[in-house]
Amino acid sequence: MTKAVYPGSFDPMTNGHLDIIRRSAKLFDEVIVAVLINSAKSPLFNVDERVALLKEATKDLENVKIDSFEGLLVDFVEGNEIDVIVKGLRAVSDFESELQMAAMNRKLNHVETVFMMTATEYSYLSSSLVKEVSRFSGDVAQLVPPHVEKALKTKYSEG
Amino acid sequence: MTKAVYPGSFDPMTNGHLDIIRRSAKLFDEVIVAVLINSAKSPLFNVDERVALLKEATKDLENVKIDSFEGLLVDFVEGNEIDVIVKGLRAVSDFESELQMAAMNRKLNHVETVFMMTATEYSYLSSSLVKEVSRFSGDVAQLVPPHVEKALKTKYSEG
Amino acid sequence: MTKAVYPGSFDPMTNGHLDIIRRSAKLFDEVIVAVLINSAKSPLFNVDERVALLKEATKDLENVKIDSFEGLLVDFVEGNEIDVIVKGLRAVSDFESELQMAAMNRKLNHVETVFMMTATEYSYLSSSLVKEVSRFSGDVAQLVPPHVEKALKTKYSEG
Amino acid sequence: MTKAVYPGSFDPMTNGHLDIIRRSAKLFDEVIVAVLINSAKSPLFNVDERVALLKEATKDLENVKIDSFEGLLVDFVEGNEIDVIVKGLRAVSDFESELQMAAMNRKLNHVETVFMMTATEYSYLSSSLVKEVSRFSGDVAQLVPPHVEKALKTKYSEG
Amino acid sequence: MTKAVYPGSFDPMTNGHLDIIRRSAKLFDEVIVAVLINSAKSPLFNVDERVALLKEATKDLENVKIDSFEGLLVDFVEGNEIDVIVKGLRAVSDFESELQMAAMNRKLNHVETVFMMTATEYSYLSSSLVKEVSRFSGDVAQLVPPHVEKALKTKYSEG
Amino acid sequence: MTKAVYPGSFDPMTNGHLDIIRRSAKLFDEVIVAVLINSAKSPLFNVDERVALLKEATKDLENVKIDSFEGLLVDFVEGNEIDVIVKGLRAVSDFESELQMAAMNRKLNHVETVFMMTATEYSYLSSSLVKEVSRFSGDVAQLVPPHVEKALKTKYSEG
Repeated sequence: MTKAVYPGSFDPMTNGHLDIIRRSAKLFDEVIVAVLINSAKSPLFNVDERVALLKEATKDLENVKIDSFEGLLVDFVEGNEIDVIVKGLRAVSDFESELQMAAMNRKLNHVETVFMMTATEYSYLSSSLVKEVSRFSGDVAQLVPPHVEKALKTKYSEG
Repeated sequence: MTKAVYPGSFDPMTNGHLDIIRRSAKLFDEVIVAVLINSAKSPLFNVDERVALLKEATKDLENVKIDSFEGLLVDFVEGNEIDVIVKGLRAVSDFESELQMAAMNRKLNHVETVFMMTATEYSYLSSSLVKEVSRFSGDVAQLVPPHVEKALKTKYSEG
Repeated sequence: MTKAVYPGSFDPMTNGHLDIIRRSAKLFDEVIVAVLINSAKSPLFNVDERVALLKEATKDLENVKIDSFEGLLVDFVEGNEIDVIVKGLRAVSDFESELQMAAMNRKLNHVETVFMMTATEYSYLSSSLVKEVSRFSGDVAQLVPPHVEKALKTKYSEG
Repeated sequence: MTKAVYPGSFDPMTNGHLDIIRRSAKLFDEVIVAVLINSAKSPLFNVDERVALLKEATKDLENVKIDSFEGLLVDFVEGNEIDVIVKGLRAVSDFESELQMAAMNRKLNHVETVFMMTATEYSYLSSSLVKEVSRFSGDVAQLVPPHVEKALKTKYSEG
Repeated sequence: MTKAVYPGSFDPMTNGHLDIIRRSAKLFDEVIVAVLINSAKSPLFNVDERVALLKEATKDLENVKIDSFEGLLVDFVEGNEIDVIVKGLRAVSDFESELQMAAMNRKLNHVETVFMMTATEYSYLSSSLVKEVSRFSGDVAQLVPPHVEKALKTKYSEG
Repeated sequence: MTKAVYPGSFDPMTNGHLDIIRRSAKLFDEVIVAVLINSAKSPLFNVDERVALLKEATKDLENVKIDSFEGLLVDFVEGNEIDVIVKGLRAVSDFESELQMAAMNRKLNHVETVFMMTATEYSYLSSSLVKEVSRFSGDVAQLVPPHVEKALKTKYSEG
């Protein structure tokens, strides 16, 4: 049995993330989507909201679970007996820093990292761009699932 | 008639920016240099100052206009009936993020983006480097037009 | 009036090329697609065939003309009073060599080069890949126009 | 059950290849190492030799099989009911062309590709470099398994 | 006599930095390791601590001196009659920004920059990663010298 | 005393090569420019011609010597007691393959490699481009020294 983790900030999740989750769920027996709690940053959605949006989006995927973690990914990997870290790759700058993190994680914990290519139609997509567009009332219907679009509208109309 | 926009922070404009403006003014019927108002950042020069420095530098170019905008570039594009976005490219990291933005803008608005290569003699140049050099009283005479050099000196002697 | 050239081998043209041609035809008054005759390489299609496939694909575009050239692009540019070279960009390795060529062409002839981003759905596409797939009877219907698909089948069944 | 293919020329296999094979054998139920028969190139080792060197190197790995193929990888994938293609990544230029091939393969066959990072100590290693060093009687003991080193010596003393 | 400077933040120094220092000390007559005082950032270790950690790590290297500077590197270069700036390169993103800085420094002061490749075993290593791991009580014994490991533990237990 | 080698094909040498030679001659006590004899390629100029063009171009540089070698660079390094290999860097694709070669050379021989940045005004320049331009009677006066320009004209008028 191979257990994978797909870590990230997911603030909020996008169609690009969902694509990687669906595809990795076909390759590995269990996929844990792990939301990073980074106390140094001020996210738009808090951890509970980010977990809830992911749960709604993946409710039809039986071998996908949503979790969150604080601190080092290698500690989460060890505590949950993870075999492999899954990362989506979009661009060269991604590639370089991801390779450095993968090498670091192998050095610290011997855990493997596999990279999956972001689908070409989502290669421009990031949570930051989604927030930027949504903040100025732009249309994000093609970029995120409907329930995330709704959550973004609520969040920015609150502001 | 083809109408282009050259967007940026221009805090302050450099000889590299001016080179792209001059060259795009030869290719397109009208070029609007659009200064981004980003309330999240604290620029060295305010929007009015940045617009004024650009106006002074481009006063001999009849088909170049200086403007400013807040929010999404695609909204500015739509409101001003722009046909094409012009971007200068210096480096690989530029290239990746610029391609993501161009794809996003095409998705949101079908607007075209063209990239022009920064002249090799300005390939190292950025507004940040100019400010860094100027802040420590370094010589920026070859990096910006004389009136921008003067404005930088005034700004840092004020501090 | 701005006159552009879009140079390449086009052995054979793909949907990616056609996308760049259509988009540049909206930006410039006239676009000449120029097929490079490179005597050092043995192409699958000869120059006349490559020109014919391009003519068929662009017959609805009034301001697009198909031509061919041998030798230096800058000589073609000079002989045809071209204002700007159009290039499609797919990847970092493209980017680097294209920038070197653009700098060389500016040095030799002061001609401008603009880069357009290959549409994300064609970012993986190249004439070589199309030939590789077609040679082993793979399906190229989504990669090239129907008349090019037909020409490829004829060419490989001849072999 | 997840079945993976690790395709390549393996002319000859190196310690870098072996590292990727061992690591992917831990993640997937079955790994087929598939030697590409490319009639257009003249390899140092013929297909039978390349297969034999791989078999010797992987004889302790129960879920690894060695095979060869000609033509399109997607046809091999379909004929063998492969779920995922495994690729090792070393460098940015690798990255770009690998992403293009992965996108092409997804388009043609919906097969998934995962990338594993070449171990940092093998990041400089390639079959070409091994042959270059071996051809001039350099020491390749740290670059390939002993039986491959021996095969290289025999091959070059034959010449 | 060739005098080199190896500038950086060194917050804190890592085994990767030490590797570059040792190797450049073999190539140049004198190597000054220059700690940048950047008042805009809040470092983990203050300048005196960073200098002390470097001194301890290089005490066996006779032609290496530790110093600190504020402001422009080119002013430090001029004030100390430096012939060459030494930089370690890990990745493509490093490469691009380093080349821009090297070009800027040549323009401002005609000083030469040479780049040395970070040893492959340290290619993933950075001061930020070391701090991240150490902050969550991870093991950094293979990443920094023992006295730096000790200093990190003290620093984070103080917090 | 530090002895450097600057290896390459130099078919023919360009102003970009000469710039690196001049700059490295200021940093190291002795610089050997080593012309690679590659029997697998058919160069435009033979080894003796390439050596003669380099000698003419560097006759005013007392600590520069021209030599040639066949086989592995590490063997030349060992036979000539070289301390350091000098390489010029132009672009990302250069960078990746150069780093792989530098790592390989360190593994095989412990020899150090330093990289110098090609001057921005020569960043587009290569021997291949020079030959391409010269072959079609283009003007290479700004790209190579006068005696190389003359040699190119003679060579192509012979053809």
